[in-house]
Amino acid sequence: MAGKLYGVGLGPGDPELMTLRAHRLIAGATVVAYPALAGGESFARAIAAGAIAPGAREIVMDVPMSVERAPAQAAYDRGAAEIADALDGGDNVVCLCEGDPFFYGSFMYLFARLSGRYEVEVVPGVTSIAACAARAGRPLVARNERLTVLPGPLPEAELRARIEGAESVAIMKVGRHLAKIRGVIEGLGLTAEAVYVERASLAEEIVCPLAQAPEKAPYFSMILLTKGADPWL
Amino acid sequence: MAGKLYGVGLGPGDPELMTLRAHRLIAGATVVAYPALAGGESFARAIAAGAIAPGAREIVMDVPMSVERAPAQAAYDRGAAEIADALDGGDNVVCLCEGDPFFYGSFMYLFARLSGRYEVEVVPGVTSIAACAARAGRPLVARNERLTVLPGPLPEAELRARIEGAESVAIMKVGRHLAKIRGVIEGLGLTAEAVYVERASLAEEIVCPLAQAPEKAPYFSMILLTKGADPWL
Ligand SMILES: C[S@@+](CC[C@H](N)C(=O)[O-])C[C@H]1O[C@@H](n2cnc3c(N)ncnc32)[C@H](O)[C@@H]1O
Ligand SMILES: C[S@@+](CC[C@H](N)C(=O)[O-])C[C@H]1O[C@@H](n2cnc3c(N)ncnc32)[C@H](O)[C@@H]1O
Repeated sequence: MAGKLYGVGLGPGDPELMTLRAHRLIAGATVVAYPALAGGESFARAIAAGAIAPGAREIVMDVPMSVERAPAQAAYDRGAAEIADALDGGDNVVCLCEGDPFFYGSFMYLFARLSGRYEVEVVPGVTSIAACAARAGRPLVARNERLTVLPGPLPEAELRARIEGAESVAIMKVGRHLAKIRGVIEGLGLTAEAVYVERASLAEEIVCPLAQAPEKAPYFSMILLTKGADPWL
Repeated sequence: MAGKLYGVGLGPGDPELMTLRAHRLIAGATVVAYPALAGGESFARAIAAGAIAPGAREIVMDVPMSVERAPAQAAYDRGAAEIADALDGGDNVVCLCEGDPFFYGSFMYLFARLSGRYEVEVVPGVTSIAACAARAGRPLVARNERLTVLPGPLPEAELRARIEGAESVAIMKVGRHLAKIRGVIEGLGLTAEAVYVERASLAEEIVCPLAQAPEKAPYFSMILLTKGADPWL
């Protein structure tokens, strides 16, 4: 009988923000799988490290950082094939996913390739948005407010248009798009309401007004605009 | 010295979807606080029940279900005063919050009242959106897609306009707004892509295409429209 594939959300970085279910599944896993930036570290593995059983087999997917899709797709093709082998051999496979697996998570690429053939369970995790809002002390949405989540790589004009029509906004994947995003927010007169959060829940965390953000942002950073929320009244 | 206030996210309902940190804080709490629908049950308390220490003091905030804001505000005023007393007495207080505290969570009302005077830590939790997507097997957003979160009580015309301009959409607080929301989605020709999820992660969970949703939806239900995501390519 084929094994079961688990896509397990790990939360934003602090291992204590993993769910009880994620912890239990990881600790009991004979095979874990995770993506790593080609040749580099795996953030997902680092979060889960303390829970992985000694002796567990590790399937590492080396995913190239490229704007083109084909190289990453090939990496997920290879990873899916290796995971399928383990499942065919009767092992369950626990795939480690930073944050929540279905929220801009790479697990989706494995889910698309394997969910037709194998039993798959997705274990939701704490998203980076919830973590950034918590660390910044900024409620996201209350009552009948709307929340818009935008990726920072969107073109400037589109970012502007989407922020203008929105209430609360979270901008993901800031990284090298920081200057562009800052310009858009400044142009809309919203800088005073914008918060910058980098590596939320980790020791190196930075939380500050956007105006005081560093010149360079790492990939794991976010900008929150929570203009709508006035939960007292 | 005054105690510290914790706003602790509990996730969508399955106690195993609580974070390790939430579990540890609840288990160690001498005072827990939570909202309950006037005279009725507290969903938050039900999720946390297995973790609460015997003998812990419980502060219950009876929140009236009313479209008007004043009665609920008065309930949070009273709750905040009772929590402040406990904090002044030197106890830490762990406030139990379904899902994530800052994502349409009632903890925001206490945060607004108490964060100026006391040390407050918000512990993020798994949101209902992540849980519903996981249970439905529907990736929310990939790459440069946008996610729009809309409350079901919004007026029909606004719902229509917001869904039209969106990619992936999650509609919260469906409940008695189900017929209206269905009409909007049908009018936009999107019914085939819509999924209905009720009480995700609980034993009574329902996941089905919107076309097969029950006539009446409970408060804890959501509709997902994930037209954007095509994560394979
Ligand atoms: C590929 S997405 C993965 C999101 C993840 N699956 C989640 O549920 O949050 C990566 C983006 O998430 C955000 N992110 C993830 N972890 C973060 C953290 N600890 N602090 C700030 N932003 C974070 C950043 O915007 C980053 O560019
Ligand atoms: C007041 S909001 C609270 C949201 C919560 N703080 C969160 O982070 O998900 C209540 C709404 O959340 C959604 N919800 C919460 N738990 C749910 C569940 N287990 N299944 C489906 N929807 C849920 C429903 O749309 C419900 O009307």
